[in-house]
Amino acid sequence: MRKSKKERQLLLQETIADTPFITDEELAEKFQVSIQTIRLDRLELSIPELRERIKNVAEMKLDDEVKSLQIEEVIGEIIDLQLDESAISILEIKKEHVFNRNQIARGHHLFAQANSLAVAVINDELALTAKANIRFTRQVKENERVIAKAKVVKGESEKGRTTVDVKSYVGSEIVFSGVFDMYRSNPTQR
Amino acid sequence: MRKSKKERQLLLQETIADTPFITDEELAEKFQVSIQTIRLDRLELSIPELRERIKNVAEMKLDDEVKSLQIEEVIGEIIDLQLDESAISILEIKKEHVFNRNQIARGHHLFAQANSLAVAVINDELALTAKANIRFTRQVKENERVIAKAKVVKGESEKGRTTVDVKSYVGSEIVFSGVFDMYRSNPTQR
Repeated sequence: MRKSKKERQLLLQETIADTPFITDEELAEKFQVSIQTIRLDRLELSIPELRERIKNVAEMKLDDEVKSLQIEEVIGEIIDLQLDESAISILEIKKEHVFNRNQIARGHHLFAQANSLAVAVINDELALTAKANIRFTRQVKENERVIAKAKVVKGESEKGRTTVDVKSYVGSEIVFSGVFDMYRSNPTQR
Repeated sequence: MRKSKKERQLLLQETIADTPFITDEELAEKFQVSIQTIRLDRLELSIPELRERIKNVAEMKLDDEVKSLQIEEVIGEIIDLQLDESAISILEIKKEHVFNRNQIARGHHLFAQANSLAVAVINDELALTAKANIRFTRQVKENERVIAKAKVVKGESEKGRTTVDVKSYVGSEIVFSGVFDMYRSNPTQR
């Protein structure tokens, strides 16, 4: 059943607060209204469009600075970073990321985004991947935007290692998940 | 103890037959002689230099043709392919594959080589990675040459999946191993 406009706008605000990178198309589908309705809702609520929301986040200074690699070596754009805690990055899937034949994103690009985020979150000059257990749960297509979220898992790793959990989403759907076991030069910093 | 020249040349021939992409440097270390000695041995035995050996292999027509992706989409160069059986590829680690800071090859390039080989070995128009369990066992440096060997594991997969085992080597040292669980559109072809 369709919600009243008031209900919908309330839920819309909550949804965008929880998942700021959701597209108008995804919102329209979620609330079973037209994209135009979502745009009007956003206007009334003074919620900027997605492109602006991403820009705002990207322009905020990160709380922490990447230590383990050069920031331009990260695949995707880091928009949040708490060293040894968590990190978020965005990767736009373009033509060069997909198979020619079916426009499905190639696994190694999703892996590269997640893996480099797992490196970046480590508060150490040296961080290298020892092993990883990964899962591709939904095909990602050209022009989709993948949000990777990394979380450092506390107190479960082998000596000298740090476990990083990465989940990647398109909208609210999980497309990739991985558990990365990272070497670091200075494990006592944890 | 050093071997006699005759013994060494016999072992050298065997070693190159077993691991055709071994470098003169690696051979020199293995037999504890100078690189110059290895070169003279090769001359006497009429064994071409590594670059030629790779070219010869690359110029041989592959027994099978890649079906699941376009051959130029494979990361590395495929030098052997038996569809639904096994495949081998070579990737030269260059400047663009390593971290600026320490010249260590980035994990996602080794992953990409192995993953695309696991796709290429599948005898199907559609092959996608469902999950993977991977391990980086030794750092790979700039200018090293990684040989990935994929083997299709028979009769152990979930329905509609094919398991591919990939091991990657520098010389005789294993640097990466992975078990890839592949979706395919036509599992009955196995």
